[in-house]
Amino acid sequence: MEKVNVRDKFGQFQEFWKPFIVAKVNGHLVKLVKLKGEFIWHNHENEDEMFLVVKGRFRIDFHNKQVWLEEGEFIVVPRGVEHRPVADEEAHVLLFEPTSTLNTGNVHNERTRERLDRI
Amino acid sequence: MEKVNVRDKFGQFQEFWKPFIVAKVNGHLVKLVKLKGEFIWHNHENEDEMFLVVKGRFRIDFHNKQVWLEEGEFIVVPRGVEHRPVADEEAHVLLFEPTSTLNTGNVHNERTRERLDRI
Repeated sequence: MEKVNVRDKFGQFQEFWKPFIVAKVNGHLVKLVKLKGEFIWHNHENEDEMFLVVKGRFRIDFHNKQVWLEEGEFIVVPRGVEHRPVADEEAHVLLFEPTSTLNTGNVHNERTRERLDRI
Repeated sequence: MEKVNVRDKFGQFQEFWKPFIVAKVNGHLVKLVKLKGEFIWHNHENEDEMFLVVKGRFRIDFHNKQVWLEEGEFIVVPRGVEHRPVADEEAHVLLFEPTSTLNTGNVHNERTRERLDRI
């Protein structure tokens, strides 16, 4: 039962689009991820996904709109909703999602990360 | 599917120790709470509870230790673990916990908040 310093944890990795697990809460994982560039369109059939911006800004594209998220802002993407995160500059994001959530959702390709590390 | 600005939401209420709901994620609620002073000892039998400091600092007392949490730090208090939040100065905290979680856990008294508002 130790506290976690989010900024310190972000200092422990450099990879983009690879989430790292930092805590577990009731079958959910708290993950940290660095975004830069454009991700793929995907959805998560059974999982709502929360994105909280810790540093920088990024946007999430939906088929009917775009949402820009600034530091200190979050959004919950409901299950089944197709989305694509895009970061023009490096952004640091805290994710909150079920343990079952795969980063690329319904898509399996070279950007899929099946096994995540805990830091 | 709207974004939430955490600081703006904290500007919408003044009460201490009364959590406000700001989002729902897979049967969990994201709540915001302002802390000042000493809360009561309690535990949550079935729920892990996450505390993330958005502003200020506070500590959580456990029976065998105290943990100080600064801005940008979080802790997960596992189910069943007796704890007491204490804030010498006003602190703003984001909670992540199951919809079933009662603020005073196993204790029911004048500080219990049965019904929470969504803002």
